[in-house]
Amino acid sequence: MRIKLTLSYDGTAYCGWQVQPNGVSVQALLQSAVKTLTGETVTVTGSGRTDAGVHAQGQVAHFDANKENIPPEKFAKALNAHLPEDIRVIKSERVDDDFHSVKNAKKKTYAYSFYKSDVELPLKERYAVRIDSAIDVSKMRAVAKAFVGEHDFKALCASGSNVKTTVRTIYDIDIVESGVDVIVTVTGNGFLYNMVRILCGCLIKAGEGKLSYDQAEKMLLNGERTLGGRTCPAKGLCLKEVVYADR
Amino acid sequence: MRIKLTLSYDGTAYCGWQVQPNGVSVQALLQSAVKTLTGETVTVTGSGRTDAGVHAQGQVAHFDANKENIPPEKFAKALNAHLPEDIRVIKSERVDDDFHSVKNAKKKTYAYSFYKSDVELPLKERYAVRIDSAIDVSKMRAVAKAFVGEHDFKALCASGSNVKTTVRTIYDIDIVESGVDVIVTVTGNGFLYNMVRILCGCLIKAGEGKLSYDQAEKMLLNGERTLGGRTCPAKGLCLKEVVYADR
Repeated sequence: MRIKLTLSYDGTAYCGWQVQPNGVSVQALLQSAVKTLTGETVTVTGSGRTDAGVHAQGQVAHFDANKENIPPEKFAKALNAHLPEDIRVIKSERVDDDFHSVKNAKKKTYAYSFYKSDVELPLKERYAVRIDSAIDVSKMRAVAKAFVGEHDFKALCASGSNVKTTVRTIYDIDIVESGVDVIVTVTGNGFLYNMVRILCGCLIKAGEGKLSYDQAEKMLLNGERTLGGRTCPAKGLCLKEVVYADR
Repeated sequence: MRIKLTLSYDGTAYCGWQVQPNGVSVQALLQSAVKTLTGETVTVTGSGRTDAGVHAQGQVAHFDANKENIPPEKFAKALNAHLPEDIRVIKSERVDDDFHSVKNAKKKTYAYSFYKSDVELPLKERYAVRIDSAIDVSKMRAVAKAFVGEHDFKALCASGSNVKTTVRTIYDIDIVESGVDVIVTVTGNGFLYNMVRILCGCLIKAGEGKLSYDQAEKMLLNGERTLGGRTCPAKGLCLKEVVYADR
């Protein structure tokens, strides 16, 4: 039977989702937990590969369990007993045998967390990135509009990725400022390698008054990143949710 | 000249504010940073001793700098260069020579962070404590009222503390529920050893329907903790602010 897992993890200690020759990955720990629990060697397939240091609130993964003696909804608690505290299965459920966490994903939402301060704030630093107090969030919002919609996002894709097409659709970019926190929430049908972190770098440049709406549009049309900003650090990024079509 | 420091720290790695024979304290690291910076051996006096694992957003401390060659407002950045990343001086300023971070403190505000979930959430666990989803925050608020005002808080004081009087005034207890977060903010003229953590244990018991307003009043009158709850863990507690009279 196919099991769908909804997961949360603090990515700080990990080399990312995917099994790597060097470094401990979330996927490897999950596969090891399944092995300890059921004795079966399985591949746990995640909806996407979060990079080293990226966090997840609602990552989704699936695997096939052959043993039928564990009720699907009990896998969450049973796997958690064999996982480190910074990885938790929030929910486990049986899905159709043709459910696929990558292929069936309709929408993904990422949140990127900044905080405005002229000095590092230790209680923010683990999950957010410090930005200058002078950054203008209304300018960030204005330029964000250029990225919403269906576009060729080649300009926001880290080199070295290997995809059939760089066309993606961003449904929404929401930027909320609350106290010192500035949270950018991006929902799309899929994202290229480092795309959200590069997008956020552009938005910070916009907030600094160094990237206009027109320049952002030009970036997308040219497919060149020269006008864009830096790639924002991994620790500010969190995969919030993966949405699947009703089945 | 007397220097007032406003500090933030992530208490996870420390044995608390105060210098201890075993374990690394925030005070020891600050004193060591001053020594490295000015060559002077000083005592950095904090407004209060935060316990092992307790965090601070706005701890206040003072010390006397004899060298006049560092402008008071520059101490913050200069000390930060000699402190680990999880301790930051937010602000440094010169104060009157009779300013005292303990004796002149008029009000302190602590926040205690809970989150409602039936499973541990890795992205919440560092700074908050999980509570049952069924906990009724309106019941917490109702019982909190019993603790507001001037009371003998002997019932909320951990044994082994050595104070002249256990009478304190709580000005306000504010409980905000937002998404899964439940934040209890307590402001008072001073707090006994473990008082906020024991108070929060009582509020959780109240939210579970196991401690009524009348029972809370009775606890205070009797000075006995038998009706109270557990002492909540250190990691959920944060010293938010210390207020001094205008000088």
